[in-house]
Amino acid sequence: MILVNGNVQDTVSALDRGLAYGDGLFETIAVRDSNPQLLDLHWQRLERGCARLKIPFPGISRLMDDIERLLEHARQAQKPSGIIKVIVTRGAGGRGYRFEPDMNVTRIAILSDWPSWQGTERDTGVKCKICETQLSSQPVLAGIKHLNRLEQVMARAEWSGNDIAEGIMLDAHDHIIEGTMSNIFFIDRQQTIVTPALDQCGVAGVQRENILSIADNAGFKIDVTDVNLTDLEKYSEAFISNSLIGIWPVTGIDKHDYQIGPATRALQEKLFKS
Amino acid sequence: MILVNGNVQDTVSALDRGLAYGDGLFETIAVRDSNPQLLDLHWQRLERGCARLKIPFPGISRLMDDIERLLEHARQAQKPSGIIKVIVTRGAGGRGYRFEPDMNVTRIAILSDWPSWQGTERDTGVKCKICETQLSSQPVLAGIKHLNRLEQVMARAEWSGNDIAEGIMLDAHDHIIEGTMSNIFFIDRQQTIVTPALDQCGVAGVQRENILSIADNAGFKIDVTDVNLTDLEKYSEAFISNSLIGIWPVTGIDKHDYQIGPATRALQEKLFKS
Repeated sequence: MILVNGNVQDTVSALDRGLAYGDGLFETIAVRDSNPQLLDLHWQRLERGCARLKIPFPGISRLMDDIERLLEHARQAQKPSGIIKVIVTRGAGGRGYRFEPDMNVTRIAILSDWPSWQGTERDTGVKCKICETQLSSQPVLAGIKHLNRLEQVMARAEWSGNDIAEGIMLDAHDHIIEGTMSNIFFIDRQQTIVTPALDQCGVAGVQRENILSIADNAGFKIDVTDVNLTDLEKYSEAFISNSLIGIWPVTGIDKHDYQIGPATRALQEKLFKS
Repeated sequence: MILVNGNVQDTVSALDRGLAYGDGLFETIAVRDSNPQLLDLHWQRLERGCARLKIPFPGISRLMDDIERLLEHARQAQKPSGIIKVIVTRGAGGRGYRFEPDMNVTRIAILSDWPSWQGTERDTGVKCKICETQLSSQPVLAGIKHLNRLEQVMARAEWSGNDIAEGIMLDAHDHIIEGTMSNIFFIDRQQTIVTPALDQCGVAGVQRENILSIADNAGFKIDVTDVNLTDLEKYSEAFISNSLIGIWPVTGIDKHDYQIGPATRALQEKLFKS
């Protein structure tokens, strides 16, 4: 089921700036036991993104109306698990790249089935590769979840099959930034949680924010910092996260292996209970 | 009039990857005296872009069918001038960023009216500003006209009104790259045509390619190279180009003034006759 500006329809204007320029933002919300997860964090990031791109924020009440209708649809279909993707674009219009401040934003909400993960990743961990496609540095767009995602599309095309679950992307200075669809965390030998700073590129995941909060509450030391490719051997554990997968332990990045250790398991446990 | 995959319709799937990720390309084609301009160069760039993004090229015959139908529509409306925008996306589908190699691309062709320029820019020249929004370096995407255009949208939002016609964008190393909607050329005191190299960022405009070819045929020396912001004073003339505007002389970039000189006028003349 798809809602476009509150109407049940599966199309948008061919003139929408989301299509023309990727001029918009999105959120991917997990639905578990018929409850949308981390909604506050999703709306906060969406509002931050709108402010950054100067797109009028549609307002939480309209967004929640969409969510409630999709949840009701899922309940009737007896599907307690699912994904709701929310897209907000600047709408249709403007001449060229120029936009008017008072444009009518387009609000899209898409309900889809829970993906058919293999299901064991959370327990047994996943292998990752370092992608050749790098993330470009752009502080104007860093951190927000905008619709310009060709770098991720190109990086994800670098492998196929199920042996590799995620590709890790670097910036041009060989800093580790994130996975194509996830954020990445490391745990050093002092049990500090380390995750890359995202002020130059990358998406600040809501699950990343949630995990940092959980880790802080659990008494972990946290270091949000530059992580160099050459630092990989400094860490004893690694994991990736996003809104849908929660925490997946990382057992290897290219030829560098990690054990699934106590910090990762502790955070998984706390995340599960949160 | 809008054609989507050859059908007269003004909507696309809300699941199209062009909307979801900017996963596609576009061309903006000028129509003059009922003739589409620089078509060969447009199709060549589109095909190059498809190859780079691993999107199946729709083929010239399908694209030309769309063009012919829009031209017929324009003729019936007695509009000999206009713009045809062609968008090609990877289509709808795939799971997340991953795509299948055999996806059905989406082909969109949009006919619109010739823009209401003030009309004197070609003669009297235009003022430009240096934008604060920089272009990020990404060799994987440099040169092609893909749909990830948030940098241009943000740069174009830096000014309003008619005093400034174009914003010039730099990379992170203070190289001059291009305008938000145009390429830029300079002419040095030895009458060499200088234009920025676009191997790290920027769009290689079809008009840029056309002008370089015309300049070469006219016996100008050409230098496609890095242009530093501090080089501005080295040049005696400057102009910007794109498919719609042709050549607009630049009379100033921020506080740096240029005369409209003989090389710019000679190229305008040759472009007009080509």
